Amino acid sequence: MRNILIIGAGRSATILIDYLLDKSESEDLHITIGDLSAELAERKTKGHARARAIAFDIFNEAQRREEISRANVVISMLPAHLHFEVAKDCIAYKKHMVTASYISPAMQELDAQVKEAGLVFMNEIGLDPGVDHMSAMKVLDEIRDKGGKILLFESFCGGLVAPESDNNLWNYKFTWNPRNVVLAGQGGAAKFIQEGTYKYIPYNKLFRRTEFMEVEGYGRFEGYANRDSLKYRSVYGLDDALTLYRGTLRRVGYSRSWNMFIQLGMTDDTYIMENSETMSYREFTNSFLPYHPTDSVELKLRHNLKIDQDDIQWDKLVELDLFNPNKIIGLRNATPAQILEKILSDKWTLNAHDKDMIVMYHKFGYELNGSKHQVDSTMVCIGQDQTYTAMAKTVGLPVAIAALQILNGNITTPGVQLPINREVYTPILKELEEFGIIFNEKHVPYMGYNPYNVAG
Amino acid sequence: MRNILIIGAGRSATILIDYLLDKSESEDLHITIGDLSAELAERKTKGHARARAIAFDIFNEAQRREEISRANVVISMLPAHLHFEVAKDCIAYKKHMVTASYISPAMQELDAQVKEAGLVFMNEIGLDPGVDHMSAMKVLDEIRDKGGKILLFESFCGGLVAPESDNNLWNYKFTWNPRNVVLAGQGGAAKFIQEGTYKYIPYNKLFRRTEFMEVEGYGRFEGYANRDSLKYRSVYGLDDALTLYRGTLRRVGYSRSWNMFIQLGMTDDTYIMENSETMSYREFTNSFLPYHPTDSVELKLRHNLKIDQDDIQWDKLVELDLFNPNKIIGLRNATPAQILEKILSDKWTLNAHDKDMIVMYHKFGYELNGSKHQVDSTMVCIGQDQTYTAMAKTVGLPVAIAALQILNGNITTPGVQLPINREVYTPILKELEEFGIIFNEKHVPYMGYNPYNVAG
Repeated sequence: MRNILIIGAGRSATILIDYLLDKSESEDLHITIGDLSAELAERKTKGHARARAIAFDIFNEAQRREEISRANVVISMLPAHLHFEVAKDCIAYKKHMVTASYISPAMQELDAQVKEAGLVFMNEIGLDPGVDHMSAMKVLDEIRDKGGKILLFESFCGGLVAPESDNNLWNYKFTWNPRNVVLAGQGGAAKFIQEGTYKYIPYNKLFRRTEFMEVEGYGRFEGYANRDSLKYRSVYGLDDALTLYRGTLRRVGYSRSWNMFIQLGMTDDTYIMENSETMSYREFTNSFLPYHPTDSVELKLRHNLKIDQDDIQWDKLVELDLFNPNKIIGLRNATPAQILEKILSDKWTLNAHDKDMIVMYHKFGYELNGSKHQVDSTMVCIGQDQTYTAMAKTVGLPVAIAALQILNGNITTPGVQLPINREVYTPILKELEEFGIIFNEKHVPYMGYNPYNVAG
Repeated sequence: MRNILIIGAGRSATILIDYLLDKSESEDLHITIGDLSAELAERKTKGHARARAIAFDIFNEAQRREEISRANVVISMLPAHLHFEVAKDCIAYKKHMVTASYISPAMQELDAQVKEAGLVFMNEIGLDPGVDHMSAMKVLDEIRDKGGKILLFESFCGGLVAPESDNNLWNYKFTWNPRNVVLAGQGGAAKFIQEGTYKYIPYNKLFRRTEFMEVEGYGRFEGYANRDSLKYRSVYGLDDALTLYRGTLRRVGYSRSWNMFIQLGMTDDTYIMENSETMSYREFTNSFLPYHPTDSVELKLRHNLKIDQDDIQWDKLVELDLFNPNKIIGLRNATPAQILEKILSDKWTLNAHDKDMIVMYHKFGYELNGSKHQVDSTMVCIGQDQTYTAMAKTVGLPVAIAALQILNGNITTPGVQLPINREVYTPILKELEEFGIIFNEKHVPYMGYNPYNVAG
C-alpha cells in the first residue's frame, strides 16, 4: 500500500494534488484528499480512479486517527497552527509528514520523538520558506566544497504580477494574502548585518532603504529588508559571514510610494476608526491630515508628504481613488490597515486573465585562494492562469515532490527537518526544473559592501 | 481621633507630608507614614511629635489591616497597580482613600461598594491627572452656568526646566520619569476631534504636527497630541463639543528635534540591541545608518535626516555626544529606548541647583448669545529646589488638601471619584493659590479652527 493523505484542499493544494495524481499510476499511489468541504475535495480528485475524497474535520479525533493510520505519508496543507494535531498522530502511527509551514516551537519539540520513530517530518518546503532554502544551500555547499569562505549572503523573494499583466502605476497586484502585504514590516525593526556590523531599520524608514537588482530579461527590482535576516544564520552555517540580508522584492518605485501610506498612518492595524462603515475614501484620507475649513484634502496631503506638482507619487495616489468623495468604505469597525486593504483590493486584484510572477534573487559573496568572488542566483516563474499560478506552483510542487521522495525512501534523515540537506534539495531542485522552476547562477564581480577593503 | 495613614514616602510624598504636618496642630491630626524603608519614613517625619514612622509592607496583610483600621483617611502614594489591595481594606474598615493615580478598571468596579459604605475614594488628584481636571471643570462649569455652549476644549500640560536653569539647546531636562519621555506617543496613533472631524496622527508624524501657545511672561511653547484626547469627553460633559484635543507642552523646537530620534529608530523599545554593553555612542548612532566603508557616521546621518550644514538640529545632536566614539553605553541587553534614555540622562539630568517648571494651558471655545468666545486659562509653577520641585508641589498638594477636606467633611459625595465636582475643585483650587499655583484666565478672540464658519 502506498497511500498519501492530503489534509486541506484549498487553492495552494491544487497543483500538489495534480502532481501526485499524474504520478499515481506509474508510482502506484493511492491519494486521499480530506477537506472540511467534501465537495471541494471531490472536485480536486477530478474523478481520478486512484483518488478518494472525504469530508475531513481535523478536530474529529477518531476520523483523524483512522485516516492517518491508513496513510504512508501525510501532507498537511492546513493553517500552520493546526499541524500539531496531525503531527502527534503521525508519531503514534509512525507516518511521515510534510508541510510548507515554518517549524513552530511546538513542532520543534517533537524532534526527539520523530527521530526515535525513524520518521521524516519535512517542513518549510514550499516557496519561501522552501525553494529559498534549497536553492541557497545548493550554492553554499558548492562554494564550501571547493574551499570557499562565505563572506556575504543576501536573499530576496517577491510575489508580483507578470509583466504582461502589469498595468498599474504601482507595478503591483495582490497575488497572495493582501493583509500580509499591508502589514509588511510591522512588529519590530528590521535587523541584519553588513560587513560585520549589526544594522537596524525602523518601520518608518524600512521602505526608504532598498537595494536594486537586475534580472536578465525581466528588468529591475528593488528589495526591502525582512524583519529578521539572521533567522537561518546558524542553520545555513553562516555564523562567520560578514553580511546577511533577507528581503522582499518589488518593482522599482513601489517602496518609495508605499512609504506614503506608512507616513500618513494608513497601515496602522492597532485601532478602529470612527464611522468606518459610512466614511468615503476621501474622508479616510482626510482623517490623517489636519483640519482646515477651506484647504483641499489634495493640497493638505501634497504639503504633508512634500509631493511636487509633477511627482509620479501623486498619480499613484489618484489611481487608487484616495480622493474620491463618493466611494464608501463600507467596513464596520475597521482599522486603517483593513480599510487600506479594501481600497487597494479595488485596483490590485488580479483580473481573470492576469498572471502572477515569482522572483527569487540570491547573492553569494566568498573568498577563495585569496580573491573575492560573487555568484548571483536568480529564478523567475510566471503563472499560467488564476489556478495554476506561479505561487501555487512554487509552493505546491516542492511539497508534492518531497512527499513522493520520502515515500520512495530517497529522503531518509529522520527528525523535524527543513530542506537544507543534499539528499533533499538535489532531487527536488532537479525535478522542479522540469516544471520551469530554474535557477540561473552567474559569476559576477564581487561587490559586497566593501569591495576594496577600505576601513571605516 | 483624626488619623491619616500615608503609604509610600518617596519623592512625590515629601510636600504632601509637610503640608499635613504643618496643619497637624491646628487640625488635630495624627500622621502615620509607612514605607518599605523605615529609615525613609522616619526622615520624612522630621521628628514631628504628631508623626509616627513605620516600616510598612503592603503585602503584609495583618499589618496592612491593622494600620488601615486605625486611620480615618488613607493616602496611597504607591505605584498605581498596588492601590487595589489598600482599597479593599479601606472598604472593609470603612475608611476614605485618596490617590493621585488614574482610576483602574479594578478600582472602578469597587464604585458600588464604596458608595454603599458611604466612603469617598478620591483618585486622579495630582497634577495631570488632577489639577487639569479641576481647573478645566471650573471654567467649563462657569461657561455652562451663564448659558454658554462649549465648542472647543484643548488642554496641554508639560513638565519642563525653569527658564533660569534652561541651558541646553533642547530647552528640556528630565523632571520626572525619563522613560516615559522616551516612550511618549508610542503604542498607537493619537486620536482627537477638530471641528467635528476625527483625526489620527501616526507616531512617525506626531512630533511634526504641533500647536503653538504663548504664556505671558514665559514665552512660547508647543504642544503635541496625547494618545487619546477623547478620554474625558463624557466625564467633562463634552459629547457635543466640536474640537477636543489634549497634548503635552514643550519649548518650541523640541518636537521637531525629537522626531529625529523617531525617524532613526532610537526610541524603539521592542528589541534588544546586540553588544549594547560595549557599544560606543557613535556605534549606537551608526547602527541605524547604512554601512559604508568610508563615509562618516556624521555625513550618513545628515543625509538620512536631510539636515543642512547650518541647521540647528545638527548642533542638538552634537550636544548629546551622539558621535562620540569613546563614550561607552555600558548597559547589558538594552533596547534602543533604554540606550537613548541613558544618553539623554547624561545631559538632561537636573543639576543640584536647577529648578523645574510646570506649565498648563487650557483653551475653552464657546458660543453665547449667538457669538463665539474664547477663554484661555494658564498656570505656571516653578520649583524651589530639587526637593520642593514644581512637580512634587503640584502633585502632592492637591492630594494632601483633598485628604484634609474629606476628613473635615467638606468633600462628601461617595464613590470612586475624580475631582470634577464643585465641592471638590472649589476649595482645593482656592487653597492651591496660596501656594502659588494660580490659573490666569483671559478672554481672547475665538480662534477655534474655523472662526469664520467657512465650509470645507
